[in-house]
Amino acid sequence: MKSSYMGVDIGGTNLKIGLFDRELKFLDFNTYALNGEITPGDVILIIKDRFEVLSKKYHIKSLACGLPGLIDYERGYIHSLTNLVNWDDVDFKKMLVEAVGVPIFIDNDVNLAALAEYHFGSGKGCSNMLMVALGTGVGGGLILNGEVYRGCNNAVAEVGHIQLSTKGPKCSCGNRGCLESYVGNRRLIGYLKRRLKYSKSILNKIDFTELKLEDVTRAAILGDKFSIEFWDYAASKLTQALVGVVNVLNLEKIVIGGGVSNAGESLFKPLRGYLKEQAMDIQAKSVKIVKARFKDRSGVIGAGLLGRDNLI
Amino acid sequence: MKSSYMGVDIGGTNLKIGLFDRELKFLDFNTYALNGEITPGDVILIIKDRFEVLSKKYHIKSLACGLPGLIDYERGYIHSLTNLVNWDDVDFKKMLVEAVGVPIFIDNDVNLAALAEYHFGSGKGCSNMLMVALGTGVGGGLILNGEVYRGCNNAVAEVGHIQLSTKGPKCSCGNRGCLESYVGNRRLIGYLKRRLKYSKSILNKIDFTELKLEDVTRAAILGDKFSIEFWDYAASKLTQALVGVVNVLNLEKIVIGGGVSNAGESLFKPLRGYLKEQAMDIQAKSVKIVKARFKDRSGVIGAGLLGRDNLI
Repeated sequence: MKSSYMGVDIGGTNLKIGLFDRELKFLDFNTYALNGEITPGDVILIIKDRFEVLSKKYHIKSLACGLPGLIDYERGYIHSLTNLVNWDDVDFKKMLVEAVGVPIFIDNDVNLAALAEYHFGSGKGCSNMLMVALGTGVGGGLILNGEVYRGCNNAVAEVGHIQLSTKGPKCSCGNRGCLESYVGNRRLIGYLKRRLKYSKSILNKIDFTELKLEDVTRAAILGDKFSIEFWDYAASKLTQALVGVVNVLNLEKIVIGGGVSNAGESLFKPLRGYLKEQAMDIQAKSVKIVKARFKDRSGVIGAGLLGRDNLI
Repeated sequence: MKSSYMGVDIGGTNLKIGLFDRELKFLDFNTYALNGEITPGDVILIIKDRFEVLSKKYHIKSLACGLPGLIDYERGYIHSLTNLVNWDDVDFKKMLVEAVGVPIFIDNDVNLAALAEYHFGSGKGCSNMLMVALGTGVGGGLILNGEVYRGCNNAVAEVGHIQLSTKGPKCSCGNRGCLESYVGNRRLIGYLKRRLKYSKSILNKIDFTELKLEDVTRAAILGDKFSIEFWDYAASKLTQALVGVVNVLNLEKIVIGGGVSNAGESLFKPLRGYLKEQAMDIQAKSVKIVKARFKDRSGVIGAGLLGRDNLI
């Protein structure tokens, strides 16, 4: 039977399971809808079921799993997750070992996305890169000297919680004025609606309750001044957080993924301009801002990779 | 003859030359006054002279040199220095090789200070630490995963140029509102004098032209409210820059050296308080704020260490 590696990506709304060959090509891929109330036990049942089906056809050598939150990578232990409520203090590695009986690895989902982009995607060949995931939350993953950087407690790359202003909006982390409190998906939509009321824009033709960030991107491409300035605002906030990271870490690339990154050049162009202007010369010249290659599959590919490369 | 390693630390006001045994104990130490106009050629003559004198007694196996500025560590090339004017684009390694004929290593001075503190000082045993040098300028050096982190162009750990406010004071780097523009030695003294005019403080008994930061520290220890608030202000600015670094890098220690760090607990106590309050929980709990062990000799010790450990 063909050797293979199972990668699992658990998110707030979806569970993705991929099976990979040695070259990290997909042999199988499935998505399952999740709701925020689902328990670790429920997820284990889904994974176990899929594992048993695929085991009939493939020799699965390892299983690795990415989760959105604070993960003890060494122990395979979940401290807490961002959008799932029943997952505080769970020995998830132990549960998975009991369910499937192959070597198990657990990591933060943005770490795994960074790993996938570093090996096969937009960050290929960059020894020092930051992955930024712009979604409801703003997460990060760091590759330094060609390896996932984990810090002393696996609590790293929290670019979403770099403080931009001590008097800014309340953030989900308890602090005020963090990057996430400005450019998290919902925060951007809130800002959009507040500003749009008093502004001239073709977006005013759309029903406010149905307004999405994609509409603003389309309008910006059409030359709508309000929409261009909206993405310029988001870029200026991102810059304010990233300029320090760039000056401190002298990165080769910042790879940006997540739903908000679909704004594309409307966001990236002003972001590059501001960073060039505000970061120190050498660091500004070195760093490239690029869009992530893998969209919703970066986590599951990174998981496959982790499982393949950590097998002894 | 006894094997030894020469360490050189070139600063804006002093040149220090140390000779070390294998355990990095000092065999010899000399300081030479420099002025900002001195040329690389002048410094080479001093080093060569000292090297020849010491070579009669010791077998000097390598020479390493720390410099305050942008250094290409791989090539041993100086791009530019902070407080010395004649040092742009100098192939300093080549000059040293020709002068002394042993293996030569060149690095940024704060990188070397970080290395010394990591191996023998306040950062001993910390795989992930930031060294902050608080002087006229604010420099940094990073140890990540037990090694000096160099980024992609050796331009790293520029904590002094993390931007605190887009509307802040003009900084030496050309940007506005960088940490250095608030807490650089001269900036702090400027702030002190501006505030003191309109404040009640025992410091008003001292002639303004002679006022030093040491006076403010002494006054703070005596309970002078103005002086306590002055260091609290400096701590709040430092926190604003460091909280992002702490959240992103999940460090074990921040080791603080340089003249301004002589404020000691007057500065460190509020700094610890603010960081605990503003950084994310896990990162805040992990990171310890400590004073550097080696004062003006950290650079020269780090240089000796670099020369010893990079010999093949």
